[in-house]
Amino acid sequence: MILRHLLLPEILDLVESGRLNDVREFLAQQPGPDIADLIPALEDKDQVIVFRLLPRHLADEVFSLLEPTSQNLLLQSMAQEEVRQVLAGLSPDDRTALFEELPAQVTKGLLGLLSDQDRKQTLTLLSYPENSVGRLMTDRYVTVDPQWTASRALEHLRQVGTDSETIAMVYSIDEHGRLTDDLRLRKLIIADPAVRVADLLDGHYACLHSLQDREDAVQVFKKYDLYALPVVDADGILLGIVTIDDILDVAEAEATEDFHKLATVRPLQVNFKDATLGLLFRKRIGWLIGLVIVNIFTGMGIKMFEDTIVAVAALVALMPLLIGSGGNAGAQAATLVVRAIATGEIDSGDWWKLLLREIGVSMAIGLAMAGAAFFLGWALGDLKVAAVVSISMVTVVVMGSLMGTVLPMILNRLKLDPATASVPLITSMADILGVLIYFSIANALFAYFNAAMR
Amino acid sequence: MILRHLLLPEILDLVESGRLNDVREFLAQQPGPDIADLIPALEDKDQVIVFRLLPRHLADEVFSLLEPTSQNLLLQSMAQEEVRQVLAGLSPDDRTALFEELPAQVTKGLLGLLSDQDRKQTLTLLSYPENSVGRLMTDRYVTVDPQWTASRALEHLRQVGTDSETIAMVYSIDEHGRLTDDLRLRKLIIADPAVRVADLLDGHYACLHSLQDREDAVQVFKKYDLYALPVVDADGILLGIVTIDDILDVAEAEATEDFHKLATVRPLQVNFKDATLGLLFRKRIGWLIGLVIVNIFTGMGIKMFEDTIVAVAALVALMPLLIGSGGNAGAQAATLVVRAIATGEIDSGDWWKLLLREIGVSMAIGLAMAGAAFFLGWALGDLKVAAVVSISMVTVVVMGSLMGTVLPMILNRLKLDPATASVPLITSMADILGVLIYFSIANALFAYFNAAMR
Repeated sequence: MILRHLLLPEILDLVESGRLNDVREFLAQQPGPDIADLIPALEDKDQVIVFRLLPRHLADEVFSLLEPTSQNLLLQSMAQEEVRQVLAGLSPDDRTALFEELPAQVTKGLLGLLSDQDRKQTLTLLSYPENSVGRLMTDRYVTVDPQWTASRALEHLRQVGTDSETIAMVYSIDEHGRLTDDLRLRKLIIADPAVRVADLLDGHYACLHSLQDREDAVQVFKKYDLYALPVVDADGILLGIVTIDDILDVAEAEATEDFHKLATVRPLQVNFKDATLGLLFRKRIGWLIGLVIVNIFTGMGIKMFEDTIVAVAALVALMPLLIGSGGNAGAQAATLVVRAIATGEIDSGDWWKLLLREIGVSMAIGLAMAGAAFFLGWALGDLKVAAVVSISMVTVVVMGSLMGTVLPMILNRLKLDPATASVPLITSMADILGVLIYFSIANALFAYFNAAMR
Repeated sequence: MILRHLLLPEILDLVESGRLNDVREFLAQQPGPDIADLIPALEDKDQVIVFRLLPRHLADEVFSLLEPTSQNLLLQSMAQEEVRQVLAGLSPDDRTALFEELPAQVTKGLLGLLSDQDRKQTLTLLSYPENSVGRLMTDRYVTVDPQWTASRALEHLRQVGTDSETIAMVYSIDEHGRLTDDLRLRKLIIADPAVRVADLLDGHYACLHSLQDREDAVQVFKKYDLYALPVVDADGILLGIVTIDDILDVAEAEATEDFHKLATVRPLQVNFKDATLGLLFRKRIGWLIGLVIVNIFTGMGIKMFEDTIVAVAALVALMPLLIGSGGNAGAQAATLVVRAIATGEIDSGDWWKLLLREIGVSMAIGLAMAGAAFFLGWALGDLKVAAVVSISMVTVVVMGSLMGTVLPMILNRLKLDPATASVPLITSMADILGVLIYFSIANALFAYFNAAMR
């Protein structure tokens, strides 16, 4: 961030005055991540100019660090031979990430530019389901033979390591290609050079399955505190590895998706900053229109009580308070449960306990809020209105909270995404319930007061 | 998760039948992370029994993997000598994480059980501000002398590496202890053993500052795709390193905090599962009561229009739809902006552009919703009500969306947490605005219709 602001004016100045050789020299001195940070901040045409000026190895690094949106822009402006070079320089997992963001037509064209081996591998990786662990894999890992000595294994690493994504972990496989163990590089380094690799292995290893949801992978990485995890198929065959830097990106992307879903924004797929007006419209309008329809029931509910409303207009003034409070308490409950499910903190075994606790919490909250609402009802209406409002408040808050707790659990049980129990959905459902509860209690209490006065 | 369910019945069975030697043998065969996963699922007293049966090295690993809640429980049941051993086995960053969760009184007692060196170090780490990078540091890193050959450096790693948190990165410092460069272990491994370390260095390195917010650190790790980053003070002195596994935890914790804040739940500090009823009450009630007070204005707004309400009761039936839609659109906008600020996607330079785009998006959304609302207004009222509702809808949706966009930006500019622009706050503010806009438009239009009919 800081560096972007430092580099930007300098580069722009040089580019505009046409001193491209100076730009070239200047850029060659900068670390790749800083250049990758800078490029999206430039005008489209300058992005291409700056990228072209990078020396080969730096260009490969910078390209792999860019977002797919910027990558696509650069690819479009490149000659075929350049595209071929850039694609060949990408690691398998970065290539998958780029291809899955591009339109099918573009992907098809780009695949033709890959070497036979790379094309086959890319197609294999893209054949794994979206959001599966398989899509994150790279085959750039190192395997060692248990019969080797530690020094022979290190010598092997020295020869093949340059090309691998990480050498923090190396793996042993059997003659069928099945994973048999993992080994931290540090153990290999620290070991007596003459010791056999087999003696360093402990038979314990953690691994991911290629078809597993990538969200699960985040939890496995958290549990084992490893930098890389091997990925196997149903037969235990080692297919590739996933590295923790990609998992950090996945954790952030999955959290962002949940944030958006909780606010009824469908997953954007691109950066918020890069989203077009049309895309934002499409991702936001669906649920909003759906919730309009839910509001038909709220409206019908209110219509049923039109006589009460005309008789005691002060009740209307307090209606937003009541239905709002039910929605707010429900939003809290839903968010707590949705997030706890996403981070793996709770599973279905805990549900009854959580539900009981929520009944207690929401009763306490409802009572406290009823106290506040009583005075508000008195101020805007009279003591009778105050009584109606405070009794309704407890009921509405408890009902809203339970709905917020139960709905994500049910969705999860049905194998649907718990985050679909969005705050606006809970709020809208609390509206319907709130209106019915509020005016029913009002009707009943006013009938009672009137009878008592006769 | 899967393993917890497999191990649990087996262990419980053995513990209950008193076959503790079998438990001991069984546990010694299990990987540490699986045991750490299992322990919190046991009854309190069984947790202590199972932990005591672990062999020394496994006990240290398991303890470091447990949540502070479980760690505290175990510590309370241990004899002083056991506590001393367990604390000595923790790495500095894990020790800081435990101590910052414990009550001051307990921390004080535990500090007395540390060796002089460990105590001094722990106090230093705890002196960094909460949520700063300093709190995540460990001093278990390896430095190399640029004058050494690669093989000498590897030999050094072999001797000191056992104790270090990671050897994926090693660092070079000058005679004052200032960081001068970093070096990936793979470069050292792959290098010709006779080459000098200085020739492997490139003078480019990324680092964190000890007082930086830990949330920034997540973005720096994402940018550089490294497994560890060095931490320096204002003079550039190397103080320690932070590893990516801790950053993955930070990213998750910070996202959880934002989720909760967006739903007006104050940060819990503990797992949702472990939160007591009283804690949940305290963390949830504050904002809810605050929002009740905001609703006073909504109520007062409605009171102003009591005559209109009594004259056209159908308007009330559509009120929840209108104020709800403004809130929902505002919730979407606020969530998009809050999350984009948190992930570093947007900064203050982008604000005008984003605001202009939001005006366009919300106009489009408002128009689409006005269409739906028109029919709803017609169904529940008449054509005049339909006209009022659809004109109000556009206005309310645009106002709600702009509020949701601008409020987090203002909070961020004021150096406050943008997530304080919570969904319930936006919703409640949209209520006030919605009521005023809706009934004002109704009054104006009905006056016009009445005049036209005369």
